[in-house]
Amino acid sequence: MVQRLLTRSAGAAIALGLMSVAALAQDAEVAEVSTELPADGQFVLNTLLFLIGGFLVMWMAAGFAMLEAGMVRSKNVSMQCLKNIGLYSTAGLMYWIIGYNLMYEGVDGGWFGSPGPIGIPDPATEGGDYAVASDWFFQMVFCATTASIVSGTIAERMKLGPFLVFVVILTGILYPITGAWQWGEGWLYEMGFSDFAGSTIVHSVGGWAALTGALIVGARKGKYSEDGKVNALPGSSMPLATLGTFILWLGWFGFNGASQLAIGTIEDAASVATVFMNTNLAAAGGVIAAIILSQVIYKKVDLTFALNGALAGLVSITAEPLAPSPALAVAIGAVGGAIVVFAVPLLDKLKIDDVVGAIPVHLLAGIWGTLVVPLSNGDANFVTQIIGIVAIGAFTVVASGIVWLIIKAIMGLRVSEEEESLGLDKVEVGVEAYPEFASGAGRV
Amino acid sequence: MVQRLLTRSAGAAIALGLMSVAALAQDAEVAEVSTELPADGQFVLNTLLFLIGGFLVMWMAAGFAMLEAGMVRSKNVSMQCLKNIGLYSTAGLMYWIIGYNLMYEGVDGGWFGSPGPIGIPDPATEGGDYAVASDWFFQMVFCATTASIVSGTIAERMKLGPFLVFVVILTGILYPITGAWQWGEGWLYEMGFSDFAGSTIVHSVGGWAALTGALIVGARKGKYSEDGKVNALPGSSMPLATLGTFILWLGWFGFNGASQLAIGTIEDAASVATVFMNTNLAAAGGVIAAIILSQVIYKKVDLTFALNGALAGLVSITAEPLAPSPALAVAIGAVGGAIVVFAVPLLDKLKIDDVVGAIPVHLLAGIWGTLVVPLSNGDANFVTQIIGIVAIGAFTVVASGIVWLIIKAIMGLRVSEEEESLGLDKVEVGVEAYPEFASGAGRV
Amino acid sequence: MVQRLLTRSAGAAIALGLMSVAALAQDAEVAEVSTELPADGQFVLNTLLFLIGGFLVMWMAAGFAMLEAGMVRSKNVSMQCLKNIGLYSTAGLMYWIIGYNLMYEGVDGGWFGSPGPIGIPDPATEGGDYAVASDWFFQMVFCATTASIVSGTIAERMKLGPFLVFVVILTGILYPITGAWQWGEGWLYEMGFSDFAGSTIVHSVGGWAALTGALIVGARKGKYSEDGKVNALPGSSMPLATLGTFILWLGWFGFNGASQLAIGTIEDAASVATVFMNTNLAAAGGVIAAIILSQVIYKKVDLTFALNGALAGLVSITAEPLAPSPALAVAIGAVGGAIVVFAVPLLDKLKIDDVVGAIPVHLLAGIWGTLVVPLSNGDANFVTQIIGIVAIGAFTVVASGIVWLIIKAIMGLRVSEEEESLGLDKVEVGVEAYPEFASGAGRV
Repeated sequence: MVQRLLTRSAGAAIALGLMSVAALAQDAEVAEVSTELPADGQFVLNTLLFLIGGFLVMWMAAGFAMLEAGMVRSKNVSMQCLKNIGLYSTAGLMYWIIGYNLMYEGVDGGWFGSPGPIGIPDPATEGGDYAVASDWFFQMVFCATTASIVSGTIAERMKLGPFLVFVVILTGILYPITGAWQWGEGWLYEMGFSDFAGSTIVHSVGGWAALTGALIVGARKGKYSEDGKVNALPGSSMPLATLGTFILWLGWFGFNGASQLAIGTIEDAASVATVFMNTNLAAAGGVIAAIILSQVIYKKVDLTFALNGALAGLVSITAEPLAPSPALAVAIGAVGGAIVVFAVPLLDKLKIDDVVGAIPVHLLAGIWGTLVVPLSNGDANFVTQIIGIVAIGAFTVVASGIVWLIIKAIMGLRVSEEEESLGLDKVEVGVEAYPEFASGAGRV
Repeated sequence: MVQRLLTRSAGAAIALGLMSVAALAQDAEVAEVSTELPADGQFVLNTLLFLIGGFLVMWMAAGFAMLEAGMVRSKNVSMQCLKNIGLYSTAGLMYWIIGYNLMYEGVDGGWFGSPGPIGIPDPATEGGDYAVASDWFFQMVFCATTASIVSGTIAERMKLGPFLVFVVILTGILYPITGAWQWGEGWLYEMGFSDFAGSTIVHSVGGWAALTGALIVGARKGKYSEDGKVNALPGSSMPLATLGTFILWLGWFGFNGASQLAIGTIEDAASVATVFMNTNLAAAGGVIAAIILSQVIYKKVDLTFALNGALAGLVSITAEPLAPSPALAVAIGAVGGAIVVFAVPLLDKLKIDDVVGAIPVHLLAGIWGTLVVPLSNGDANFVTQIIGIVAIGAFTVVASGIVWLIIKAIMGLRVSEEEESLGLDKVEVGVEAYPEFASGAGRV
Repeated sequence: MVQRLLTRSAGAAIALGLMSVAALAQDAEVAEVSTELPADGQFVLNTLLFLIGGFLVMWMAAGFAMLEAGMVRSKNVSMQCLKNIGLYSTAGLMYWIIGYNLMYEGVDGGWFGSPGPIGIPDPATEGGDYAVASDWFFQMVFCATTASIVSGTIAERMKLGPFLVFVVILTGILYPITGAWQWGEGWLYEMGFSDFAGSTIVHSVGGWAALTGALIVGARKGKYSEDGKVNALPGSSMPLATLGTFILWLGWFGFNGASQLAIGTIEDAASVATVFMNTNLAAAGGVIAAIILSQVIYKKVDLTFALNGALAGLVSITAEPLAPSPALAVAIGAVGGAIVVFAVPLLDKLKIDDVVGAIPVHLLAGIWGTLVVPLSNGDANFVTQIIGIVAIGAFTVVASGIVWLIIKAIMGLRVSEEEESLGLDKVEVGVEAYPEFASGAGRV
């Protein structure tokens, strides 16, 4: 008899037992060739999933750059581009030097792993279900996303150097530590916290760090008048902001889809597909909710609400894009879109100057998305979700606050008033974004 | 003897018959292990093809947004961005609520399927050759493409609300019905109509709906003088229009390539590769034809002809990107490019104001591409191709015309003359696209 | 006994020998089902790698277009867009008509292959490890990249027609010949030259052709004053230049990653992943080196240095992205970034007017990257690397120089002084890039 013992997991040893020649004929009808992919095929496909997901999330760095370049005034556009390519590069180095191992190496239920640079994996001896380098790449772009969230909020007044120093700490130490709690299988993971692709781990961490930064660096000159009036400082290019939003939406299929972490079986492939579907439904729900609410409340449809509605929908579904029904995915995203419409004016009342709306989108919608995981995922519960949100929030607020304050004390965070009026491009970059237009016009 | 019975198709049952111990030795030389992918591997790869193809076509929504943002005047750019993210979101919801099942669920040779929202597919019990959610995602982005085509033509004078209401009907009902005729295996499919990736099903449907919209909403103020003069209303940003075209070209590899619908066998993989090759050749042919004709006829090389030449080449090859030889693919695309150069001025003579040239590109090149399928595909014939083109065109013209007229009667389609002069951004969006430049300059 | 003889390589014949019924029981413990992908699966995955890598590199054409559109003055932006879509299309046709076979068909240790158009591959009879059409597509986009490099350097003064004629020769003949020496397995390949993804084969060839073009066409009017002063002619849009750089960075994962040429085994998949990792590390190293050096030397952080630093890091690692340790990858990229900071002013001293900095980025960093291959790859040696660099450089300089001079003699390369002042968009394209802004302002 030819008997095939197969285990589901990739890399499984597949044993062919040849037991008894006598039994051959009688068992002929039930013997079947496996329909499963061989182990190497699963390794290849899982690795491919990380690489495709990784390049899509890498592309989100461009999305943030365009969104922010469009949302700042023309005198600060070159700086915003510089901060974005600088932060992505900084994250890429720091997550190699210390972050990846700090987040994943031997955390084992604890608070963080063993810091230190990861070496070059040897393909020949590589075990597991995927190439280590592909996992590093995929996790690195998530780390960079966290820093991208911060750059938008503190735009137009923070100096380049201090910002990049903050990114060094955020991407090398802060993000990997709270990441280790959950994705490194630390204490929070063992409690049963659930955050599929990082509504809390990535988006709220970026949002909290942006919030402390905004509070410490203060609002842009001219944003809030002494008489309490809030002045719009309109962004320089709506098509670039729109482009950035579409890039982020596209990248999110990698962000959420590849967070399934495997695609070598029917179950995994179907799960990735469901994640794609729900991710798109939530974003669409966020856009339509923001459009309708904007029309009802303001009698105009503010494009920036629609764009941030898409992003808030995406952030909202990120904690659990697999389990919800399509209708629930739409609803979760729609609430995200509503959060934007209500929270943007609220922040202005609090005089928290968030240039791109990153705090409503990434922090508030991130909390919302994490909170509602138990609605569809029976393995999650509200208490643990709240513990995770609060613990990660508290750590990030305190730690990022301390870092911002130390940097402020040593280097200063902010350009002078005169420099702010001139624009960071002239002062720090030396390259104007649009040298042939906008010379002086419309600048505050 | 170990005998392996294998069928080509994914998901095939692979039977291992162990027939006779006595026959073992004598058949040893011919017994071979199959070189084919196991069924689960085919499911995974087909699903991956839909997801990759799907995110590439999703990205085309950004391409249309940038193309149109570049082709309208700066006073309407924010609105054009808003319409594009709004239509993509609307399509994403409508194709879940009603469209997908209307197009695919039990059409069975008829006129349409069973409308109704699709539920969440259960990965564990999912049968077939691919994940249902991946197919939904892939088909949804095609549906959204149809709506994207319309938004460019009717730009700069149609209000947001009526446009989105039209998109609701187009993506929820009209596109799924004609789609059901062919891709839902309805009556046209049974007749033998051939349209690989949708020159007719997608592009001409969008083109017809755009044409009826343009006729009913009328031309932009100032486009056609009373003395018969045609006034150029130049687009605000050629680099954005170029970016949009490159995005569309990139997305088309997903549009045509993944329309092979499977990539789990050598034949399917090689076919997808041939589709990529021919798709690129046709687009290149369209560009070069448009450049040469523009130079010969107008003594200048109009960039917008080159861009639309690429798109017309792509639309032309979409009905049959697999069967043509490379030379035929180039020729088919080149004729598409020529169509643009000749049809754009023709439409102006007819006073049909198509802001981005979507009617030549998507409707006329779509008809052309569908007509020439029988040149390379022996399973197609001219009569059936013409029947399909005419039937889908007649239905879409009548149905979309009625929908436009109903919306016009209830909501009105068009902003007032004064609002059109001010620009839709100020009037309906409340956010200027470029608040620091272009204030008033160059506006009609 | 069931004995499985398996070879590692894709497409391997997998023989099942059934030797002896008597031996069945005694060998039962060691007999194992292979964990490897069946041959068809390897064909499919290798083809998929080429298609994904190919569409990412195709997307680089858009990256060059945006980078260059942002780096030229607004009066030449439409022309730059036109040249870029025109060159990509020209390359796509020429590489089908003659280039691919000239580079790959029967080179066999020699100098070039058999020119002539490739036909349509027949999927049913297709042999080998991947679909021929997928390889054509992947190699074609590399060929187009070479031409993209040239267009940036000679921007703002060269006419469209002569430029496209040069592209015909470069992509149809020059690039395929030197490509045949190495990738077609010609004489240089047999000597042991090593260039994984084309630091020399692609980037330096583009760079040399750009250099000869810049020398023969001369500098832009107003760039170098008679008193020796160098005048900055700042680019019109830094966000577009930034977008272009991010697009190129994204595309480079396809450029380098898919140059592994196979992904059907654990070794190949892990290698592709390592290439992704090192590619990103080198680019990040280039950015950070350029930012730090710019700050130290100029007291400002020039955004264009940071952008070109990323690209130079990418070009530097392209010759060997697999073998280096992560630390070495960072170092190789960082030197690339430093090359930009030092070489850009040097070129200006030599009065070589390179509008986008393509010569430092693609030529100098390309040479650097090729030179350091032996540091990590034991199969390469410095002498052969230098022979390759010099041979390909000498051929390209001489051949491209002759072609430029012939075109100059017959058609002229350059617009008139008056036309240059007006801008190429008005003179040759007839479509202004930004008709509502920048009318006359800031133009030299």
